[in-house]
Amino acid sequence: MDKNRKWRNFFVADSAIIGEGVELGQNTIIEENVVIGKNTYIDCNCVIREGTIIGEDSFVGSNCIIGEYQNDFIYTRKKDNYKLSIGKNALIRSGSIIYSNSTIGDDFQTGHQVTIREESIIGNSVSVGTLSDIQGTCEIGNYVRLHSNVHIGQLSSISDYVWIFPYVVLTNDPTPPSERLIGVKVNSFAVIATGSILLPGVEIGQDALVGAGAVVTKDVSEYMVAVGNPAKEISDVRNIKNRFTGEPAYPWRYHYNKNMPWETSTYDEWYQSLKLN
Amino acid sequence: MDKNRKWRNFFVADSAIIGEGVELGQNTIIEENVVIGKNTYIDCNCVIREGTIIGEDSFVGSNCIIGEYQNDFIYTRKKDNYKLSIGKNALIRSGSIIYSNSTIGDDFQTGHQVTIREESIIGNSVSVGTLSDIQGTCEIGNYVRLHSNVHIGQLSSISDYVWIFPYVVLTNDPTPPSERLIGVKVNSFAVIATGSILLPGVEIGQDALVGAGAVVTKDVSEYMVAVGNPAKEISDVRNIKNRFTGEPAYPWRYHYNKNMPWETSTYDEWYQSLKLN
Amino acid sequence: MDKNRKWRNFFVADSAIIGEGVELGQNTIIEENVVIGKNTYIDCNCVIREGTIIGEDSFVGSNCIIGEYQNDFIYTRKKDNYKLSIGKNALIRSGSIIYSNSTIGDDFQTGHQVTIREESIIGNSVSVGTLSDIQGTCEIGNYVRLHSNVHIGQLSSISDYVWIFPYVVLTNDPTPPSERLIGVKVNSFAVIATGSILLPGVEIGQDALVGAGAVVTKDVSEYMVAVGNPAKEISDVRNIKNRFTGEPAYPWRYHYNKNMPWETSTYDEWYQSLKLN
Repeated sequence: MDKNRKWRNFFVADSAIIGEGVELGQNTIIEENVVIGKNTYIDCNCVIREGTIIGEDSFVGSNCIIGEYQNDFIYTRKKDNYKLSIGKNALIRSGSIIYSNSTIGDDFQTGHQVTIREESIIGNSVSVGTLSDIQGTCEIGNYVRLHSNVHIGQLSSISDYVWIFPYVVLTNDPTPPSERLIGVKVNSFAVIATGSILLPGVEIGQDALVGAGAVVTKDVSEYMVAVGNPAKEISDVRNIKNRFTGEPAYPWRYHYNKNMPWETSTYDEWYQSLKLN
Repeated sequence: MDKNRKWRNFFVADSAIIGEGVELGQNTIIEENVVIGKNTYIDCNCVIREGTIIGEDSFVGSNCIIGEYQNDFIYTRKKDNYKLSIGKNALIRSGSIIYSNSTIGDDFQTGHQVTIREESIIGNSVSVGTLSDIQGTCEIGNYVRLHSNVHIGQLSSISDYVWIFPYVVLTNDPTPPSERLIGVKVNSFAVIATGSILLPGVEIGQDALVGAGAVVTKDVSEYMVAVGNPAKEISDVRNIKNRFTGEPAYPWRYHYNKNMPWETSTYDEWYQSLKLN
Repeated sequence: MDKNRKWRNFFVADSAIIGEGVELGQNTIIEENVVIGKNTYIDCNCVIREGTIIGEDSFVGSNCIIGEYQNDFIYTRKKDNYKLSIGKNALIRSGSIIYSNSTIGDDFQTGHQVTIREESIIGNSVSVGTLSDIQGTCEIGNYVRLHSNVHIGQLSSISDYVWIFPYVVLTNDPTPPSERLIGVKVNSFAVIATGSILLPGVEIGQDALVGAGAVVTKDVSEYMVAVGNPAKEISDVRNIKNRFTGEPAYPWRYHYNKNMPWETSTYDEWYQSLKLN
C-alpha cells in the first residue's frame, strides 16, 4: 500500500478499549464501551456498536455491522447495556450483520452478507456461509459448518460436528401462523444436504444423512439416510460408497478431517487421546 | 452515548425537507428534494436518493439505499423526477435497498438486505423479511407478512392478510425464457409454507394452505391444503389441529392476532365493528 | 443535482489510473494500481481494491466491494498482486462483492448483493441476479443469464446461452463432506427452472429443460424435459407450446431474442451470417 495512505474519518468512542496493533479502516465507527483485542483488523465502513467485544487476531471485513440494535433500541432509542461477545481469531467477511446479545466462540468464520440475530449461542470453530440467516434464540455447537444461504429458525438446536448445506431451512411453526413454536434438533455428525426443509420439531439422529431436496416431516433415526418429499428412510449411511475410492463414505468423521480437531491424526486416535486426558 | 460524539460527514441537499427531531448518522447522504418526516432516524452510511419521501417516526438502519436508481439513470445519468413514498412509522433494517417509484403504506417493516424494485404497490402494516426480493411491478395488500428470503416475481398480486414463509418463490414465466409473463395471485388469509414454488398464473384461494416444499402447478381452491411435487389438494384446512391445544388451527384468523387489527378483540368482533362503522 | 454538491472524503491512491470523465461518489476508496476506464461511474461507499481493472462506460452502484481480498490477505495482510479484470460497459448494482483474481467479459450485469468469488471465468454479456452467489473456480460462457438467488458451486461449467432461474443450486460434493468434488456441466441453450437442485457431476444436455423444483440426480439428455424429485425425463422440449400463442416454445432461441446477438434478425439468419464471416 501507499506509505502515505491515511485512513480518515473513523470514529472511536472515548470509552472503547482498543488493543495493540489494531487497524481500523476508513469511515469505521467504534461505539461506546467496545473492546477490540490486539492485532484485530476492522475494515472500512463498519459499525461496531456499543458494548461489543471482539477477540484478538480477528478480521472484520468492510460494511459489517457488529452488535446490531435490537428492536427495543428502535422504539426507545436507548440501548440497555447489551453485550455481544465474539472470541479470538474470528473472520467475519464483508457485509455481515451480527446482533447484540449473542455469544460466539473462538475461530468463528462467516461468508458475506450473513445475518445472526440476538440470543444465538454459538460454539467454537463454527463457520456460517454467505447469505446464511440465523434467526436467533438458538444453540449451535462446536465445529458446525453451515454452508451458503442456510436459514436457522428460532429454537433450533444443532449439536457438534453437524454439516448443513446450501438452501436448507430449519422451521419452527407447526401450524403457521401460530405462537407455539417448536424447534428442530440436529444431533452430532449429522449431514443435511442442499435444499432440504426440516419441519418443526423433527429430530435428526446422530450420523444421519438427509438427502438433497428432502422435506423432512418425521424424525430421522441415527445412521439413516432420508430422501424425498415427504422424506423416507431408505438406507443406512454405512452402505454409501465414495464415488472415487469405492470405500464407505460415512460416518464421515473417518474420512474427512479438514479443520477438524483430528486433523493431524485420525478420529479414533483423537478420540482416544481425549479419554486419556 | 458520549455527549461529545459528533456525527460527521453527512450530506444534506439544500432542497431536502427535514422534519423536527430527525437524527442522521455518520456518512449518510440525503439527496435533492427528499422529505423526511419528524422524529425519523436515519442511521450511518445510508443513501436517500432524490425525491424520496419517508414518513414520521420511522427508522432506517445503516447501509440502506432508499430510492435507488432505476436503469434509465444508469444509462443517462439523469433522474426523471421519480418518487418513492414510504408511510409513517416504518422500520427498515440495515442493508436494505428500495427503488424509486414504488408506494409503501404506513407501519412498514423490513429485515436486513431486502430488495424492493420499482413499481411495487405495498399496503399498510406489511413486513418483508431478511433477504427477501420483491422484483417490482406487483401489488401487495395490507397486513401481509413475507418471512425471510421470499422471492416475489413481477406481476404477482397478493391480497390482505397473506403469510408467505421462507424461500417461497412466486414465478411468472410459463415457458422460460419468454416475453409473455403471467403473475401468481394469492387471495386473502392464504398461507404459503416454507420452500414452496408457485408456478406462473396459479391462483391460491382464500384461506388455502400450501404445504412446505410444494411445487404448485394448478390453482388451489379456497380452504384447501395442497402438498407435494406436483402439489395435490389433500384436505380441508379446517381439519388441521394445533399440535399443542388439539383445537382447529385454521382459519388462522380465529387463533392468531399478534399485530393484526383484531389484536385487542377477536376477529369476529373486529369484523362486526367494521360493519357497524 | 445541486450544482454545489461536493462529493467529499473519497480516497484515490496515487498509483491508480482514472480515465477521463470518471465520477466518484462520496466515501469511495480507490486503492493502489486500480485502473478505471473512461466515463465510468463509481457510486458512494464503494471499495475498489488493489489491482482491479474496470472497463470504460461502466457503472458500479453504492456499497460495492470490487476486488475483494482472498483468504491469504486475511491471514498475512499482504496482497500478492492479484488482478480482477472486468470488461467495458459493466453494470454492477449496489451491494455486490466481487473477489480479486477473476476475469469477467464486456457488458456484464449484476443485481444487488451478488457475491462472485475468486477464479471465476465469466464471458461476455452475462447477467447475474440479485443475491446470486458464484463460489469461484468455475467457468461461465457468453450470454448466460442467472436470475436471482442462484448458487453456482465450485467446478461448475456453464456453456453459452444458458438460463438459470431463481433458487437453483449447482452442487459439487457427491458424499458431503468430502474433498473430492465434481462439478455440474450445463450445455448451451439449456434452461434450469426455479428451485431445481443439480447434484454433483450431472450433465444437462443442450436445449434441455429442467422443470421447477426438480432434484436432478442423473444426466438429462439434449432436448429433454426433466421434472420431479428425483427428476425423470418426461417429454421432448419441442412438444411444449407457448400458452398464449399455441406455437412451440422450444428451442427458445427461435422465439426469444431480447439482448441476444440475434436481436435484430432471427437466430437462423444470425447463425448463417456467422458462418459467412
